[in-house]
Amino acid sequence: MDTSTAAHTLTIRVYYEDTDAGGIVYYANYMKYFERARTEWLRNLGLGQRQLAHKQKILFVVKKCQVDYVKPARLDDLIHIHSHITHIGAASIVFTQQAQDQEQMLCQSQTVVACVDSETMRPTKLDPMIRAILEKVKV
Amino acid sequence: MDTSTAAHTLTIRVYYEDTDAGGIVYYANYMKYFERARTEWLRNLGLGQRQLAHKQKILFVVKKCQVDYVKPARLDDLIHIHSHITHIGAASIVFTQQAQDQEQMLCQSQTVVACVDSETMRPTKLDPMIRAILEKVKV
Amino acid sequence: MDTSTAAHTLTIRVYYEDTDAGGIVYYANYMKYFERARTEWLRNLGLGQRQLAHKQKILFVVKKCQVDYVKPARLDDLIHIHSHITHIGAASIVFTQQAQDQEQMLCQSQTVVACVDSETMRPTKLDPMIRAILEKVKV
Amino acid sequence: MDTSTAAHTLTIRVYYEDTDAGGIVYYANYMKYFERARTEWLRNLGLGQRQLAHKQKILFVVKKCQVDYVKPARLDDLIHIHSHITHIGAASIVFTQQAQDQEQMLCQSQTVVACVDSETMRPTKLDPMIRAILEKVKV
Repeated sequence: MDTSTAAHTLTIRVYYEDTDAGGIVYYANYMKYFERARTEWLRNLGLGQRQLAHKQKILFVVKKCQVDYVKPARLDDLIHIHSHITHIGAASIVFTQQAQDQEQMLCQSQTVVACVDSETMRPTKLDPMIRAILEKVKV
Repeated sequence: MDTSTAAHTLTIRVYYEDTDAGGIVYYANYMKYFERARTEWLRNLGLGQRQLAHKQKILFVVKKCQVDYVKPARLDDLIHIHSHITHIGAASIVFTQQAQDQEQMLCQSQTVVACVDSETMRPTKLDPMIRAILEKVKV
Repeated sequence: MDTSTAAHTLTIRVYYEDTDAGGIVYYANYMKYFERARTEWLRNLGLGQRQLAHKQKILFVVKKCQVDYVKPARLDDLIHIHSHITHIGAASIVFTQQAQDQEQMLCQSQTVVACVDSETMRPTKLDPMIRAILEKVKV
Repeated sequence: MDTSTAAHTLTIRVYYEDTDAGGIVYYANYMKYFERARTEWLRNLGLGQRQLAHKQKILFVVKKCQVDYVKPARLDDLIHIHSHITHIGAASIVFTQQAQDQEQMLCQSQTVVACVDSETMRPTKLDPMIRAILEKVKV
């Protein structure tokens, strides 16, 4: 597996749990999709979050997110989540992500993820090893 | 507040987040409603779960649940959750609960909640003080 | 009930369903809280969404949202959601909302809600009656 | 793809969205996992639910479910959902499902799914074509 490419794609199926009475995917559930994609990418890069929490006592927590909704998705749709890392700060990472169906953009987001101490929940500088891994895949 | 009555009612509003593309409340979400009701009742009885987790190192976890769905609820409905404690075991509590709208039964459930050690997740006997509180409201 | 004030507050309890293994409220769940608050406010103003969907064939859907997370909330916390309408467009409404605990800001958001035709999901101009109601409470 | 076998397995990853402040998968979320598995199996059998809703005006809705929780799952775990159809009634299907990690049973469930008219939500007999497909995979 080549994990050094500057993009990651995760494909997700829309189930009943994801939809609402408007017949479309509930707006907050895209945040779940985007987080699944970030998680899988980090795991592919060797950065499993449970392990980081236990061994290094750090958590990645969302500090800011922004989503633009373009087209609604529906039950049974397949959604492709494309992720990029567009900025790496001292204690944070910026992910830019798009959700697309076969043809069109569904929504796009920008998420600032902070690295925090799992006990105090205070920001903590990205470990040099983690930073090196992330820099390799940054756009 | 008289907390010694053998029943508790919590009223819940149905929001978009609770519904699915079938236009009705998603079946798993009643488990959330039933748990909110159990939590509020336990809190009223002085058994706040965060406090129990921190001070007594115990968690209440669901060991078994059963739900019969009678009539679907829809967006904007008000649902009344009626709860009873129908059995208290050495390390467990059985809750019998009904969800109703203005006129009719929506669903009913029976839930076995075990008392576990928050570190090991193993069953631990109900503390006599907790047991005494629960016995007072048992049907 | 005076429904003409330019603010609305909804108080929400944090349940297990809202939290995650980091011990805090899962970031996407604030979008549920913010939506509950918008929904209750609109209902207070006579704009029940199920009724609007059935009678006027319109839905309010989120076109854009942005959330800044300041401080995490935890199990059993009471969260106050303060909502304001800060802009009314031809076919959209902008809500500015804050989530606070007893002492501090937890997070704040800005949400653009579009009025769409419930069949085509295309933007549709705000009905003059709806607009008049909203203008009264706009900041 | 041989779709005539009397079992179906779906593998699911546990994300933050699935867990709660107890550090384990929230009990109601297994219902989501079980439903994803039923949905994928039905889809494999040619019974896509969105299509059934649109073309045949039928929905599969849960009438009864029962879950026994044996061992908790945690963040990042891979969970295998094994599904069997153990009974087919005039207007209902019984699924028996197990969730397992690498080594152990996590929980098991029995779910009665009813076939209902999507407008009236009333039970409707299983179409002979659907019944024939399901009988082939019944245990």
